[in-house]
Amino acid sequence: MEFLSGVKEKETLELGELLKKDRIGQEVKVNGFVHTIRDMGEVAFVVLRKREGLLQCVLEEGTAGISEKDLREEQTVEVTGLLEEDERAPHGIELRIREVQVLSSPSEPLPLPVSKWKLSTSLEAKLNYRSASLRNVRERAKFRIQEGITRGFRDFLYSQGFTEIHTPKIGAKGAEGGSNMFRLEYFHHPAVLAQSPQFYKQMMVGVFDRVFETAPVFRAEKHNTKRHLNEYTSLDFEMGYIDSFEDIMAMETGFLQYTMKLLQEDYAEELRILGVTLPKTDRIPQVRFDKAKELVSEKYNRKIRNPFDLEPEEEALIGRYFKEEYDADFVFVTHYPSKKRPFYAMDDPEDTRYTLSFDLLFHGLEITTGGQRIHEYQMLSEKIAARGMEEEGMDQYLAAFKYGMPPHGGLGIGLERLTMKLIGEDNVREATLFPRDLSRLEP
Amino acid sequence: MEFLSGVKEKETLELGELLKKDRIGQEVKVNGFVHTIRDMGEVAFVVLRKREGLLQCVLEEGTAGISEKDLREEQTVEVTGLLEEDERAPHGIELRIREVQVLSSPSEPLPLPVSKWKLSTSLEAKLNYRSASLRNVRERAKFRIQEGITRGFRDFLYSQGFTEIHTPKIGAKGAEGGSNMFRLEYFHHPAVLAQSPQFYKQMMVGVFDRVFETAPVFRAEKHNTKRHLNEYTSLDFEMGYIDSFEDIMAMETGFLQYTMKLLQEDYAEELRILGVTLPKTDRIPQVRFDKAKELVSEKYNRKIRNPFDLEPEEEALIGRYFKEEYDADFVFVTHYPSKKRPFYAMDDPEDTRYTLSFDLLFHGLEITTGGQRIHEYQMLSEKIAARGMEEEGMDQYLAAFKYGMPPHGGLGIGLERLTMKLIGEDNVREATLFPRDLSRLEP
Repeated sequence: MEFLSGVKEKETLELGELLKKDRIGQEVKVNGFVHTIRDMGEVAFVVLRKREGLLQCVLEEGTAGISEKDLREEQTVEVTGLLEEDERAPHGIELRIREVQVLSSPSEPLPLPVSKWKLSTSLEAKLNYRSASLRNVRERAKFRIQEGITRGFRDFLYSQGFTEIHTPKIGAKGAEGGSNMFRLEYFHHPAVLAQSPQFYKQMMVGVFDRVFETAPVFRAEKHNTKRHLNEYTSLDFEMGYIDSFEDIMAMETGFLQYTMKLLQEDYAEELRILGVTLPKTDRIPQVRFDKAKELVSEKYNRKIRNPFDLEPEEEALIGRYFKEEYDADFVFVTHYPSKKRPFYAMDDPEDTRYTLSFDLLFHGLEITTGGQRIHEYQMLSEKIAARGMEEEGMDQYLAAFKYGMPPHGGLGIGLERLTMKLIGEDNVREATLFPRDLSRLEP
Repeated sequence: MEFLSGVKEKETLELGELLKKDRIGQEVKVNGFVHTIRDMGEVAFVVLRKREGLLQCVLEEGTAGISEKDLREEQTVEVTGLLEEDERAPHGIELRIREVQVLSSPSEPLPLPVSKWKLSTSLEAKLNYRSASLRNVRERAKFRIQEGITRGFRDFLYSQGFTEIHTPKIGAKGAEGGSNMFRLEYFHHPAVLAQSPQFYKQMMVGVFDRVFETAPVFRAEKHNTKRHLNEYTSLDFEMGYIDSFEDIMAMETGFLQYTMKLLQEDYAEELRILGVTLPKTDRIPQVRFDKAKELVSEKYNRKIRNPFDLEPEEEALIGRYFKEEYDADFVFVTHYPSKKRPFYAMDDPEDTRYTLSFDLLFHGLEITTGGQRIHEYQMLSEKIAARGMEEEGMDQYLAAFKYGMPPHGGLGIGLERLTMKLIGEDNVREATLFPRDLSRLEP
C-alpha cells in the first residue's frame, strides 16, 4: 500500500529561496513562464515570470542543448543553471542556463503586450482578454494587494474574538427590502440572491457575540458607474455589547491600521510595483453628516440642495476638505438621516431624524456603511410598521430579538472599492478579477 | 474635530482574561447572556453565556441592588463582582456579584431547551428555530470547529505560496455542463449560478501559479440525502507546475495535518465540548478505484455491479476496509473512470479509460474531488469535441490554454461535509448554519 505523508520539498526553487545569499554560485532548478526573450547575438536573455516576480536567465548559444529559436514567449519551462549576482538584473540575480526543459507551449500568441511594464490597453480589452491581461506583472499585483486586505480583515478580527460565519446567498427574502435583488426559481419557489448577510450576521451576534463574513453579495442595481458592481465581495462584521456606535468605527480603524502594517510587511514588492503610498490610518476624523455638508458648502461655495441626501460630488468634496484641512485620507461621516438608512438602523435618541450610523469615505468615496442596530423587538417591530413593511418572511430574524439580543452594530466594506482606492485606480473594475456589471456577464 | 485612533481596551473582560491567575481576588466586570438561573434560597447561581464559554456568578439576596426575581434567562447583562476560585464551577472560577446592569430583555421565552447540555430536539426543530438552537453551547461549538477548518485551509495555503482569489458566482455558462444549475435572469440575459470556480481558478494558474478560493457554490441537484446541500462552501485550490497528480494529494494531506494541529491548539475547548477525537493524518493510504472495488468486493462478499461506478455503499465499505486493515480515517481513491469525470480531467496516458484524478474519503464519505487537468489546448479541444460539447461560451477559459498553461491540477473540498465527519455527525445539515436543500429556503 502506498501512503501520502504531506508536502514534499520541491526541487525547483521560488524567487524568495533564490534570493537567500547562500544560493549564489550554486546550480539551481527553477520553473516559470517565458516572459520575454531578448536576442543579443551570442547570448539571449530569457526572462522567466514566476509567481513572486521576474527572473533573468542567460542562454549562451550551444551550451544548453537548446537554441534560443526553440523558445517562445508563454512557454512554461523548467530551467537548470548557475545562479550569479548581477546588479543590472531584476532582484540583482541572474541564472546562467545549463539545461532547459519545455513543459508546455502556447498555440497562439498573446493578444495584448503583456510583458510591457504598463499594460496600456483599454479597460475593455483588459477585461475581454482576462486570461492574458492578468499575466501582466502590474495587473496581477493589484490582486495580491486585494488578498492582503482580505487577509488583514480576517486576521485582525480573529485576534479580536470574532468568529467567521458562512451564510446562505440564496434566500426567500432580502434584508433591505424588495428592490435591487436578483430573482431566481428555487425548485418551484421564488427566491432571491442575498444583497448582504445583514439578517444572518445580526442573528449570529446572539450566538457568537462577534462575527464576520467575507463573501459575495449581489445587487441588481441599474447603475453603470465607475464605482458600481452588480456582484462584489463584502467584508462584513457585526459585534455585540457595544457601548456606542463609535466602538464599530474604532474596530474598523483597528482593522485598517493592522492591514496597512501587513501590506507594508508582506506585500512590499507589490506596493513597489504599483507605486502605492499607503494612506494614513493613525487617526481618522469623524464628522456629522449635517456638519460635513455645511463645511464643504462653505469652503467650496456649493449650495446644499437636499439636507437629507449626500451626492457623490459632495462625498468627493468632503474627502477633499479633510485632506486639505487635516491631511486625512479617511473620514467617518456619522449620523446619516433615518430616511436614508434601512429599518434596522438605530435612530439617534437625541434626534430621531438621524441614526447612530456612519459611512467611511476614502479619498472621497464611500467604502463602508455601518452603524448601531435596533436590538429590542418592540422598537424594531414599531419601525417596521411605521415604514409600512411586512414582518412576513423575517420570522427567524425577528425571533432573535424576541429571544433577546445585546446592543450591537456592524458594517460592510466593499473589498473592490477599498482595493481600487488603495492602488489609486478610479474604476472599480480595475480591482475586480472578473467584474459583473450591467453589460458584462463574461468571462 | 474628533478622531478615531483604533480599538480601545474594553472594561469588560472575556473568559480567557478572567482565567489569568492574577485576576483572582479582584473586582472585574463582565457581560453576557443569562444562560441559567438556579435559585438556592439565599443565593442564586446565575450562569452567564459568553462567547468563549460559561461563567458562574453567585447572587446573594440583598447585596447587589437587584433580586434574582429581576433576572430572566436570555437577558443580556453587565455584571461587576469579585472573582474567586471554585473547583465546582465551570473553568474553576466564580464571580460574586456586586452589581448587575440589565442591557436588554427578551420578550418571549426560548422555544427550545437551549441551556441543556445536549439539545435533544429534532433536526427540523433546530433548523426552524435557528436563532435559538445555535445559542446552545454544543451547537455553536460545531461552527467554531468549522471556522478552524477554513482558517487552517487558508493559512496553510498562504504558507505554500498560494494567492487567494474571488471569482464571480453569476455567469453566462457553467463549468461542468448545463445540468444542475440554478438559472436566473441577469438584466434580460440568461445567467446561471456557479456550481464551482473551476474555470476561473484554472485560468488564474496562468497568473499566480497557485490559487485558492473559499466561497459558496450552488448545485440545483434534486437529491435530498443526508450528505447533499444545494448551496455549500467549497474550499478550492489549483496549483501549477505539478510533477504528477500526487502533488495535489500531498498538498491536501499537508492541509489536513496543519489543520488538525491548529484545531488541537486553538480549538481545544470546542473539541472537548463535542467530545471529538481528531482523525489520523500522518499517512493517508491511496488506492486505485478499480483496486478499491475489488478489495471490498472480496472482503465483504459484495458483487461488483458496475466496474465504472462507485455507489455510496461501496464508498462506505472502502472507508471501513481501510479503517480495519490500516487504521486509516482517510483514504485517497485514485484513477476514476474518464466517463465519470468532467471533460477537463487529464486521462491516464497508460489507460485512457481512467483519469489522473482522485476522491478523498473520510470515514467512507467523499469530501474532496480533485485531479490533474488537461493543460494543452489541442488535447482539451479534442476532448470537448469527442464529448459532443460546444466551445461556445468558454472563450476566455480556452484562451488561457491557447496562450499557454503549465501542467496543473487542483481540488474542491466540501466544507460542511468535512466538518460533519470531523464532529461525528451523520447529516450535513448539522454542520451548516443555514442549510439550503430541496425543501428548505428559510431561515
